[in-house]
Amino acid sequence: MIKTISWKNNKVVFIDQRVLPAAEKYVTCASYRQVIAAIKNLTVRGAPAIGVAAAFAAALGALKLCDLTPDKYRQKFFAICEEINQARPTARNLAWALERMKKRFALVQDLPPRRITAELIKEAKCIYKEDIAINRKIGKNGARLIAHHDNILTHCNAGALATAGYGTALGVIRAAKAQGKKIHVYVDETRPVLQGARLTAWELKKEKIPFTLITDNMAGFLMSRRRIDKIIVGADRIAANGDTANKIGTYSLAVLAKEHGVPFYVAAPLSTIDVGIKSGEKIPIEERDTREVTRVQGRSIVPKGTKVYNPAFDVTPENYITAIVTEQGILKKPYIAAVRRAHQGVKN
Amino acid sequence: MIKTISWKNNKVVFIDQRVLPAAEKYVTCASYRQVIAAIKNLTVRGAPAIGVAAAFAAALGALKLCDLTPDKYRQKFFAICEEINQARPTARNLAWALERMKKRFALVQDLPPRRITAELIKEAKCIYKEDIAINRKIGKNGARLIAHHDNILTHCNAGALATAGYGTALGVIRAAKAQGKKIHVYVDETRPVLQGARLTAWELKKEKIPFTLITDNMAGFLMSRRRIDKIIVGADRIAANGDTANKIGTYSLAVLAKEHGVPFYVAAPLSTIDVGIKSGEKIPIEERDTREVTRVQGRSIVPKGTKVYNPAFDVTPENYITAIVTEQGILKKPYIAAVRRAHQGVKN
Repeated sequence: MIKTISWKNNKVVFIDQRVLPAAEKYVTCASYRQVIAAIKNLTVRGAPAIGVAAAFAAALGALKLCDLTPDKYRQKFFAICEEINQARPTARNLAWALERMKKRFALVQDLPPRRITAELIKEAKCIYKEDIAINRKIGKNGARLIAHHDNILTHCNAGALATAGYGTALGVIRAAKAQGKKIHVYVDETRPVLQGARLTAWELKKEKIPFTLITDNMAGFLMSRRRIDKIIVGADRIAANGDTANKIGTYSLAVLAKEHGVPFYVAAPLSTIDVGIKSGEKIPIEERDTREVTRVQGRSIVPKGTKVYNPAFDVTPENYITAIVTEQGILKKPYIAAVRRAHQGVKN
Repeated sequence: MIKTISWKNNKVVFIDQRVLPAAEKYVTCASYRQVIAAIKNLTVRGAPAIGVAAAFAAALGALKLCDLTPDKYRQKFFAICEEINQARPTARNLAWALERMKKRFALVQDLPPRRITAELIKEAKCIYKEDIAINRKIGKNGARLIAHHDNILTHCNAGALATAGYGTALGVIRAAKAQGKKIHVYVDETRPVLQGARLTAWELKKEKIPFTLITDNMAGFLMSRRRIDKIIVGADRIAANGDTANKIGTYSLAVLAKEHGVPFYVAAPLSTIDVGIKSGEKIPIEERDTREVTRVQGRSIVPKGTKVYNPAFDVTPENYITAIVTEQGILKKPYIAAVRRAHQGVKN
């Protein structure tokens, strides 16, 4: 399996997603601030992977606190978590992982500092391992939706690279393939950062799953020619009512899917669902550096002084989503009730 | 005005649209085969510009026929026209311009060969001049649809660079600006060849019309936030019923426009309407070199061996189109009747 993230000798190692597929390079972070930088500059991306990275970052931070008094430890640890939390605004898993780390801290805060840190590292490793197990469950649940000979469109990268391993949307595709289903994947290149062309194509090639790359604006034409049977994407944050923030372009695909009667699925762990946010309108949308649009591989493609708008995500209202695949089962409308049941641990 | 194409000393000069906006370079073609190559490799592109280029190519071909017998002249000239006609399959104006050149030939074929050639050069220059005049009429007609403070989305390049000058969709925008309307343009970058990011941005900058560049997959999000008032695009071929082939991605925008109640306009000269084709299904869709998708500025962005699908155009069914702006007026539904009237020279 692809080693997206790992914890090695009290350091965090990431595969560098900025240089894939041209090079398979690894980046080692020895401090939580280096992890924050890696999240911000997209060395690591994808909501579940960002969650795991955040937990590891908090653990890295805790390593430096072993000589502090209990009070100082607590204060510093919470400050570090808050700093990590600011790394990227849209991905729900970032806050979720930090909340889990803080909960763990609350349970162990009376231990000696060195033991607290050990417990926090254990918790982060646990989040990491759980993420892979959860993705496998998502894959298994979602594979039921995939038929033999399906042509499946996916957008951005919701694969092993977007998670600790296996993937959410690509996890479903992996699981369907493992069941012996013959499938073909259309991969949207996903401008501006090209996660589809660079990362999803790379993963599918490794998995020997047949795929065809298209530019983002070809999906509608393919649907009009009935060449796409299903669409499956990941999510960065899901509101309590099912509205889903995901990579920019997802909403356009959902509208096109509705127009053509193509089922539109979201695959995500429960940790991506933010029950504190009632609807998609409240999800913060990150705007990123305009150079992501104006430059490709470091070279400018536009006239000097070109003004750019670069929202990294969009929100797909719940009524466009056929089902949400989670580790707890397949959520169906009305999502508000299905999400509540899932969060209470009831099988959907 | 931008010199997209010109006839100079029995040669054809094109601004090289492949290297814009990084460089303003001109390419000179001394033979019709060089013009064919320039059409194929996108030195010149845009249906009306391709029409003018085709007429000039036929004239260049005729220059070499002055020493032939009348029979040989006719035979060679028709063979040259046929060869030019194969350069690109979707653009209607290519065939239209060649038909006009052949009609002119039929009228002058009894003259001495040198005189025939002179007449053919005159006809090609006439097509060139008419194109600019027609675009100005399209602009004037279309500007009525544009309101003060409109945010207008356009896709690909339907500007001076796509025509002999002035432009179709951008002609409407130019005319609206000339009327003193304050407008702002959203420019879709238009992958894979980036005609929006490279060419439309370049033209709007020259015209000092405020614009913002977005990637193709951001348009849906902008519409959901009510930031786009109107969409206007050009056309490569329009069927008798109004179905419109245009740059890949146009259809997706039309579906999104319908979903959001945004008016969707096509601007094109009557020479783009192919009354011989009943509906869009019959319009040939060109598939282009996969390297347009896999490489940006010469550098690969995908894993080795990635399979690509690269249709250059899509077809927007007439029911998604609010109106078609022509030099003969604004065509409205039912297009089949409006197109017939326009072709008969009746003002719509």
